[in-house]
This record gives sequence, structure tokens and C-alpha cells, in this order.
Amino acid sequence: MIQYAHPIKIYYRDVDKMGIVYYSRYFEYFEESRTELFSSIGLDITSIESKGITLPVISSHCDFKKGAQFEDKLLIKTSIFEKPRSTIKISYEAILNNSNDLLVKGYTIHAFLGKNGKPRKPPSEILLNFDN
Amino acid sequence: MIQYAHPIKIYYRDVDKMGIVYYSRYFEYFEESRTELFSSIGLDITSIESKGITLPVISSHCDFKKGAQFEDKLLIKTSIFEKPRSTIKISYEAILNNSNDLLVKGYTIHAFLGKNGKPRKPPSEILLNFDN
Amino acid sequence: MIQYAHPIKIYYRDVDKMGIVYYSRYFEYFEESRTELFSSIGLDITSIESKGITLPVISSHCDFKKGAQFEDKLLIKTSIFEKPRSTIKISYEAILNNSNDLLVKGYTIHAFLGKNGKPRKPPSEILLNFDN
Amino acid sequence: MIQYAHPIKIYYRDVDKMGIVYYSRYFEYFEESRTELFSSIGLDITSIESKGITLPVISSHCDFKKGAQFEDKLLIKTSIFEKPRSTIKISYEAILNNSNDLLVKGYTIHAFLGKNGKPRKPPSEILLNFDN
Repeated sequence: MIQYAHPIKIYYRDVDKMGIVYYSRYFEYFEESRTELFSSIGLDITSIESKGITLPVISSHCDFKKGAQFEDKLLIKTSIFEKPRSTIKISYEAILNNSNDLLVKGYTIHAFLGKNGKPRKPPSEILLNFDN
Repeated sequence: MIQYAHPIKIYYRDVDKMGIVYYSRYFEYFEESRTELFSSIGLDITSIESKGITLPVISSHCDFKKGAQFEDKLLIKTSIFEKPRSTIKISYEAILNNSNDLLVKGYTIHAFLGKNGKPRKPPSEILLNFDN
Repeated sequence: MIQYAHPIKIYYRDVDKMGIVYYSRYFEYFEESRTELFSSIGLDITSIESKGITLPVISSHCDFKKGAQFEDKLLIKTSIFEKPRSTIKISYEAILNNSNDLLVKGYTIHAFLGKNGKPRKPPSEILLNFDN
Repeated sequence: MIQYAHPIKIYYRDVDKMGIVYYSRYFEYFEESRTELFSSIGLDITSIESKGITLPVISSHCDFKKGAQFEDKLLIKTSIFEKPRSTIKISYEAILNNSNDLLVKGYTIHAFLGKNGKPRKPPSEILLNFDN
């Protein structure tokens, strides 16, 4: 398992006329959070891509429980629970800081593609966090 | 059943460094498309909201098959297949114009909330498109 | 002179908690509008870029007079008043449909760069709209 | 004078197909940075707004010198040089971390409006940073 908690702060650009974060913004927070999760295990996406590996999103999901508001501070708890094979599932929970309220819960699934655009196995930096 | 096909054109703002539409943008296209679907049956969201009714997103999902590129023209086929009750499920397929390629497929689920923030039934303009 | 009027409709994604379009969104509308202006004279950006020409933004400006609201329909009047040389200035006015209210007024300045990243002259399709 | 330096990291969502940050994103970074500048002098925008004061943008400008890339870390140097009266000018410089390269330079001008939507003087927390 790999886990990482990434802080996010809500700005005007994020909030709609109901006064809560517009739904698609969470997928931007998820991207930011998984980039930081990979960085936390020594993998930056730029160097993954320089080896010709890409991780296109093949599925994304988010359930919305409660709206976040302007200037709220969130924690995005990001987890890889299952050992990745040709695809990887990354799970996210957005928690309101200082309250533990679960705001949204979602996941993204990514493929690992090699230089030729064909499926390949995940980088070893990811695999060594999982048992065989 | 209610269906509506809405055209979208891809601009620079939408496309990432892989040269394809960034994944969260599709949720913006979905919002645009469902707004136009409602408009096509005589319901604009502004007048729904002026009656104190809101339709917050409670779930969103998208599967990505193939990337759309800059200046591509898409058709977002938007459908409400099932009669809505306290929630409504709206389905989307993004098709590349002139090729019929399915690019992405997704859905959003919304609640109907009344003035008091409590669940309420859908507006009659929606219901009259469905059998009992 | 080259002019083009491009329609825009405001969706939830565009509007902030004051109930008006968030300021940076106008720069996205400007990009959409200049892409359509170029398209109107037979120049699509994709084919410009396939010749190795890029038009990076070197300056952008916008003055905000009045806020646009959700489901408003705007017209973006886009103009190239002066003959471009190594740079091109594109001017924009966002007008509220059916009222002629000026909402925002701005411009962007772009360089023409060739394959080597060096300044070059504008495509002839643009120049032939201007006297010498 | 009031100054504040705010760090920003570039993610996939920010970068266009030229591999550099899309121009309108800088106006989002500017908003984030001025929110943090105000926070640094004990003013959060939420509490300003709860007193009925709003700071709508009336003008925005940005000059682009050099593109920022994915996973770059920037510092947004944000400054209020002149004592604000009924309007306030906020200046921004985006610097590439560890290189001191100036990437973009811009400003925004905001009005102070009171409960009635009429111009009013700035909050005292801002004024006390300036001589008379």
C-alpha cells in the first residue's frame, strides 16, 4: 500500500455560485495529489515520461457528500491499495481540515503505456511497496 | 427518455501536453450538455433555481477510450434513460464528429433539493417525458 | 482590418460565488474567439502549427465593466485593427446579447515564431486583409 | 508597501500542448497569491466579505516572458506598492525557483465596494501598511 495526504486550499476560482467547489475541480485536486504521492516515493512524472512511460487516465469517479467552501483547507488522502499490474487504481478522500468531515470520495484508474503506446508493467519504485 | 446531442469544439485551453483533452474538462462539457438538454425541454436552470430548486451533483463518472485533440469537433450525446425520482441519472457519450468514434462515456447523478435543502420530486417538465 | 463576432454562453463552471463570470475565464473566451476569427479567414491553428509556426501570447489585458451571469449569452467582438508585423494585436469586446451592454474589453498580443523559435512574418492569409 | 512571496507548483492541468502553462492560468495563480498576501496581514477574504465588502477585479494585465513547464516550482512575488484609495493595484512577478528567471509580470486592479455596491475606503488592516 502507498498513502499520501496532500493539503489543498480553496480559492475563488474553485467555487461556483452555490458557494461550493465546482465538481470537476476535484479531479484537478486528485491529479495534484497523485503527482505528490508519486513524488513522495521518489517518482516524479517528468522523469517517468522522459523514459517514454505515460499514465493516461482510463476511468475516473467521484462521489460528493458535502461541499467545500472558499478558503476551506482540505486534506486529500490518496491511496494505492492494490498492487498495480498493467493498470493502477488510485483512491482519494477529501477531508475538511480540523473537522474530519468527508467531503468527497473518488478514484482514478490509469494504464501504464510504454514508448510504443503498448501496455507495460509499472515502474519498480511503485512495485516495491507491494508484496508479491 | 430524454435525449439531446450537443456540439463542442476543442480549444487550446482544453488540451494538455500529451496533446489530448485534459480529463476533468469532460465534466465541464457534461455540465454544458445537460444544461442544453434541460433547455431543449423548456427548462433553464436559472428558472429552476429561481423556484428554490437545486440539482447538486452527488456522483460523477467518466471512462476514457480515446483522446480528443485541438480543434476537434465533438458531439456530446446526453440521455436520461430512467424516470427520475429524488435523484436523476444523466448519461453522456462524446463522439468524434464525422467518424463516430466513441471518445468518452460517463454519467452524473444529481439530487433534487427544495428550498429547505430537503429532497423533493423532479419538475413536471422532466417527468412528462416518462411513462408512469 | 479583420473582424469576427463569436457567441459564447455562460455555464456553471464559469461563474463564481458572487454570481458572475470569474475573471480569468474571459481569457479562455478570447482564445476561443481568436481561433474562430482565424478560422473565418481560412486559417486553422492546427494547420498553422503543422507548418512550424506558433503564436505564443506575449501580453494580455482585460478591463471589466459589468459581470456576466449564468446562462447569459455573450457576443465576443474580435478585431485585428492594425497590420501585424512580427507581432499581432487582437482586440476583444464582450457584449451582452440583446442589450448591447459592454461587459469587458481587452486585447492579447502574440508573436509569430518559425520552426527555429525565431520571429517571422505573419501568414499571407492574414496579411492580405491589410493595405500596405 | 506590502509584499508576499507565494509558492506555486505546476501540474498537468495547467500545461498546454506546447508544454507550457496556458496563459489564463497565471490569473488564477495571481488570485491565489493575493489571497495569501491579504492573509499574511491578518485579512482573510471571507471575513472581508462577511462585512459586506467586495473587491471585484476592474482590470488585469499580464506580460509573458518565458514559459513554465510541468512540475516547475514558481514563486509569485506579490506587491502593493501604492497606498490604495477607492481602488487597489496589486503587482505580480512569477519567478522560476532556483533560477531567478522572470517568467511573467502582471497586475490586477480592484475596487473596494461596500454593502450598497458603492465605492468605499479600504480596510484599515491594509491602510496601516502605508504612510499618509
